[in-house]
Amino acid sequence: MLPRGRPRALGAAALLLLLLLVGFFRLGGDPESRGAAGGGGAGGLDPALTPHVPPDGRPRGTAGLDGDPPGDHNRSGCHPPRPRPPKCELLHVAIVCAGHNSSRDVITLVKSLLFYRRNPLHLHLVTDSVARNILETLFQTWMVPAVHISFYDAEELKPQVSWIPNKHYSGLYGLMKLALPGVLPPHLARVIVLDTDVTFASDIAELWALFAHFSDKQVIGLVENQSDWYLGNLWKNHRPWPALGRGFNTGVILLQLDRLRQAGWEKTWRQIATRELRTLLATSLADQDVFNAVIKEHPGLVWPLPCVWNVQLSDHSQAEHCYLEASDLKVIHWNSPKKLRVKNKHVAFFRSLHLTFLEYDGNLLRRELFGCSSPLPPRAEQQLTVHRVHLTFLPHELPAPQPHDVTLVAQLSMDRLQMLEALCRHWPGPMSLALYLTDAEAQQFLRFVAASAVLSARRDVAYHVVYRDGPLYPVNQLRNVALAQALTPYVFLSDIDFLPAYSLYDYLRTSIEQLELGSRRKAALVVPAFETLHYRFGFPSSKAELLALLDSGSLHTFRYHEWPRGHAPTDYARWREARAPYLVQWAADYEPYVVVPRDCPHYDPRFMGFGWNKVAHIVELDAQQYELLVLPEAFIVHLPHTPSLDISRFRSSPAYRDCLQALKDEFHQDLSRRYGAAALKYLTALQQPRGLA
Amino acid sequence: MLPRGRPRALGAAALLLLLLLVGFFRLGGDPESRGAAGGGGAGGLDPALTPHVPPDGRPRGTAGLDGDPPGDHNRSGCHPPRPRPPKCELLHVAIVCAGHNSSRDVITLVKSLLFYRRNPLHLHLVTDSVARNILETLFQTWMVPAVHISFYDAEELKPQVSWIPNKHYSGLYGLMKLALPGVLPPHLARVIVLDTDVTFASDIAELWALFAHFSDKQVIGLVENQSDWYLGNLWKNHRPWPALGRGFNTGVILLQLDRLRQAGWEKTWRQIATRELRTLLATSLADQDVFNAVIKEHPGLVWPLPCVWNVQLSDHSQAEHCYLEASDLKVIHWNSPKKLRVKNKHVAFFRSLHLTFLEYDGNLLRRELFGCSSPLPPRAEQQLTVHRVHLTFLPHELPAPQPHDVTLVAQLSMDRLQMLEALCRHWPGPMSLALYLTDAEAQQFLRFVAASAVLSARRDVAYHVVYRDGPLYPVNQLRNVALAQALTPYVFLSDIDFLPAYSLYDYLRTSIEQLELGSRRKAALVVPAFETLHYRFGFPSSKAELLALLDSGSLHTFRYHEWPRGHAPTDYARWREARAPYLVQWAADYEPYVVVPRDCPHYDPRFMGFGWNKVAHIVELDAQQYELLVLPEAFIVHLPHTPSLDISRFRSSPAYRDCLQALKDEFHQDLSRRYGAAALKYLTALQQPRGLA
Repeated sequence: MLPRGRPRALGAAALLLLLLLVGFFRLGGDPESRGAAGGGGAGGLDPALTPHVPPDGRPRGTAGLDGDPPGDHNRSGCHPPRPRPPKCELLHVAIVCAGHNSSRDVITLVKSLLFYRRNPLHLHLVTDSVARNILETLFQTWMVPAVHISFYDAEELKPQVSWIPNKHYSGLYGLMKLALPGVLPPHLARVIVLDTDVTFASDIAELWALFAHFSDKQVIGLVENQSDWYLGNLWKNHRPWPALGRGFNTGVILLQLDRLRQAGWEKTWRQIATRELRTLLATSLADQDVFNAVIKEHPGLVWPLPCVWNVQLSDHSQAEHCYLEASDLKVIHWNSPKKLRVKNKHVAFFRSLHLTFLEYDGNLLRRELFGCSSPLPPRAEQQLTVHRVHLTFLPHELPAPQPHDVTLVAQLSMDRLQMLEALCRHWPGPMSLALYLTDAEAQQFLRFVAASAVLSARRDVAYHVVYRDGPLYPVNQLRNVALAQALTPYVFLSDIDFLPAYSLYDYLRTSIEQLELGSRRKAALVVPAFETLHYRFGFPSSKAELLALLDSGSLHTFRYHEWPRGHAPTDYARWREARAPYLVQWAADYEPYVVVPRDCPHYDPRFMGFGWNKVAHIVELDAQQYELLVLPEAFIVHLPHTPSLDISRFRSSPAYRDCLQALKDEFHQDLSRRYGAAALKYLTALQQPRGLA
Repeated sequence: MLPRGRPRALGAAALLLLLLLVGFFRLGGDPESRGAAGGGGAGGLDPALTPHVPPDGRPRGTAGLDGDPPGDHNRSGCHPPRPRPPKCELLHVAIVCAGHNSSRDVITLVKSLLFYRRNPLHLHLVTDSVARNILETLFQTWMVPAVHISFYDAEELKPQVSWIPNKHYSGLYGLMKLALPGVLPPHLARVIVLDTDVTFASDIAELWALFAHFSDKQVIGLVENQSDWYLGNLWKNHRPWPALGRGFNTGVILLQLDRLRQAGWEKTWRQIATRELRTLLATSLADQDVFNAVIKEHPGLVWPLPCVWNVQLSDHSQAEHCYLEASDLKVIHWNSPKKLRVKNKHVAFFRSLHLTFLEYDGNLLRRELFGCSSPLPPRAEQQLTVHRVHLTFLPHELPAPQPHDVTLVAQLSMDRLQMLEALCRHWPGPMSLALYLTDAEAQQFLRFVAASAVLSARRDVAYHVVYRDGPLYPVNQLRNVALAQALTPYVFLSDIDFLPAYSLYDYLRTSIEQLELGSRRKAALVVPAFETLHYRFGFPSSKAELLALLDSGSLHTFRYHEWPRGHAPTDYARWREARAPYLVQWAADYEPYVVVPRDCPHYDPRFMGFGWNKVAHIVELDAQQYELLVLPEAFIVHLPHTPSLDISRFRSSPAYRDCLQALKDEFHQDLSRRYGAAALKYLTALQQPRGLA
């Protein structure tokens, strides 16, 4: 690229050549990009290239940018451009994201970004409260080095764009891109703006490097639209907003923020939008209509990006013209409302790129950036693995506030998905479930829910995905995620293999109210647990039926055969006769399923795999002087299942048992520290010979 | 790059510049690569650059090739080089691969290659019979467009290198790289040779493009060794083979085959190796020692590759000097015997690159190459999905030929891994198991086996991985894979949820011999099936014990409650009393577990998911006039398990049941076509009301 301000016309050919070379050496710029940019014959070395629209409606400046046709090298003298910004330069990216589904999309986009990037990134996320909750937790737990995140409240931006009537599916949020220059920090000079439905197939630094080609007047980098929409000939009376030829697509935007602000961007777009709305009444394509109307009037503002930076897979896309030549795709844009189901000759190819990142193990992106000292403080040494957490993976509605409402809390992995339908039938109330999955399994889970009418119909079940990492099953970390996300005043701490009595949800709410749980009484309500060893099993519809099954030997009290201590204090004999709730005393190894206020103590995350994870929690409740109150009409039944892989992998290992013992010791030391002499009883109980309890 | 043969010295500076530009435009070459290559100050624009070894032992030509230090651009005038060969040029890659474990490695390498490539590839694989069996099946079923495969028999190469005593873990196979110029087709002019333990992080076309930098004399492209091995100072009396300075690593080699052959490569390396062996007695690093000895004597042969093309993660690697500067890794080389467990400051980063491809869904690589017309014939329209198949995923020894030996054949997915240990305890004979897994699950499976002493100890269990694709469980395709790989004369066609009587393996072999199965008698031996609904269950050690459990209600005949037709013809009442094998007649819906000669009919692959898959096979046996002979002392017991996801997903779908009915109709039409009137009975039986059977 020519140094700016240097006189451009010199008489002698040799001197011109010399000048070119000086330009190469001085700026370290990329003559090839200009060459490729002007490869269609327009502009060539003129950095002030502005699009000029010939009668066919195709901006000539763009034509030359379409990829990298073979043979063009001869004209440009260099190889295909792979310009990069200075090593370790911080690159800024802005994304508007709202709701559960867009939050999933944006994560796939970010995974593709991170896979190819070699620079530190700063993501500027304009979010509604749902997306903020999801993405804030995700990035905190993801801990990707050299990635900064800033959030901006979409709610605050609404007044700036809500006056624009809009028919596009992106709603108000699409329009917010127009307001970004005013929203992003004033010191921020450049930003790349991305739609949530794009996938990177290359290093974003190459895109960032294109800023260097902007002239003083050029402030917006955009790829030409790859459909005929703005030509206005799609159907009779089709009246699109004004645009230069095919217009530009705003799925990928380079914004020179400093100059936009200086040039009075906000005033400009508002004026033009107001004027057009008088006749057009509403935008059809949200922000894109307004951007195009502004550019139509001020064509000098735009620098046309090579088409490969926004390959648009809409229904009537002509993107083929771009990518068949290019063989070097940079960014795919799923800009059809049909998304991955769009029809397109090469959609299988594009889908495979997208699926790559959809299913990519995000933990692998925690890798350090080489050679760039991380601008983040070095990570504290963590004793426990921090698992990536994606809260409310599927759309979820907040429960209406009810003073005695109770959320069923549980955790599961892929091999227990089959339980979900039955659980939904048995528990009509809210649930908060933590799922321990790989990225690929999370996609299987989505398909599983979509295929189930029962599951799809529920909006009060919150699924929180905790991504797998490491060999041990982090059972208590999972429970804590699910517990922390329960939004009712009470929680029922259950396990996924249990089905509740059909009446349990109603009965618990009534009991909570009658017992004044949490207000007058600090108590944990015990729900007695039973089990069947048969997998064909008629679920008892009442306590009477349950007792009959118990007497006939079809049901047993839970773990009656292998571990009666776990539930002995519930006192099943007394329960048979009980008509009113009754108090029981804590004893060693007691691990009942309980209902407690949601501000109860968390589970101890040190207990991983299978052993003592619930026991420790009940000890904690007892130490904090929760009464243990057994409910006479409540019950749950454990269904049989194949032992999980995690159990069978570790149950037999002596090292594992030693490790569990060490954890127990540590736990008791912590108890003494926190509860003093009162904690002594737990240690004493533990040291009694097993037969006595 | 300067056109070869053009006079290089011209007086006037302006003319020199002119010449440079002419060079750019004329060749479309990449001046930057030369610039970066010579960026350290050596050579500059001299295409005949040869390494020159200064006293520090570091070839000067290589120093400048180390990556792409920032600031270098100014000197070179262009951006970092990303040279590419002409679009759609076919690139040739040669790999020597032997045994089960290397075959797994090479697939990960190939996945990384395919992920980044944009050119058609021809893989030249020098394999032993094990690797050939695995890789031939894999590539046939993978069906990646624009990938050609040729196999070369390592056995035939052995005499060419077996005379060289070698201490390296790669054994004879490493040495075979020396013989490649003679083995590969004479018309092949260039090839990239790769070790199985490298991972690509970039497009191999960029590496291929470096051939263009070779002078007429340069015939081998290599990266400098990143350890001090060849400096000979690692320990007292350490006597490495002769090398230029640090020497070169042969994990990645560019071979200019045509010129190597002309220059008498074979004679040269043999002479030099013979001479060195007189004093050094054996190679320590296999082919690498010989390559280095040759290069020491003929330094003009080598063109030093930039270090990023072979980042060596050995134990004492100094690779850091390369990659910290480069920020642009191209190829990772796990050249320590510890492989992924090597200790290295940045190993987590490299491991994440490697795991990316280890777990990458290979089906996604079936995507077409854009813009290159595939040189393969267009794929025939397949009615059924072709699943990628990786035979003998783990080391496996062929069973010693025994005339009456029998292999247990079954298939499973991840949720049944827990069965494998018990199955191994119950069946001491050979097994052929097809596992339906994702690429990531295949890695979990490896860890599962490694953690199990029982499984690790067995070499007679062949695990064949069939990669998941599509929503339906291809149960019969899986069975066919396992059946086709059974290597004994007889097979026991079982299911994974059954445990055989401890004596079954011995009893079957005796029965096969006594009944002269397959030779005198065309029969299927029926193994009666039972089931327990209890998880905790003492396995009967004899028929008498089994009958006692049956009488006490702890055991049932298989599917006695829901589907007695499936096993009714076995006639359990008669079996109780039977002392000798007895004939039974086929009836509708009969699906016993049988022992047959391994050349029995295959399963009908159309039956997917859950229904009729075994029934159709038994119909086929009956149609082919196999007698059904029940064995009086044989039994298997089905253990309870959670219904699989696949079952619960489809069992309830009416569309699924309609589809199954259509398949049954199709199957019966095929039967009539093949067996004529004799097949009528199956249709008649099917049409009888269910209650009568």
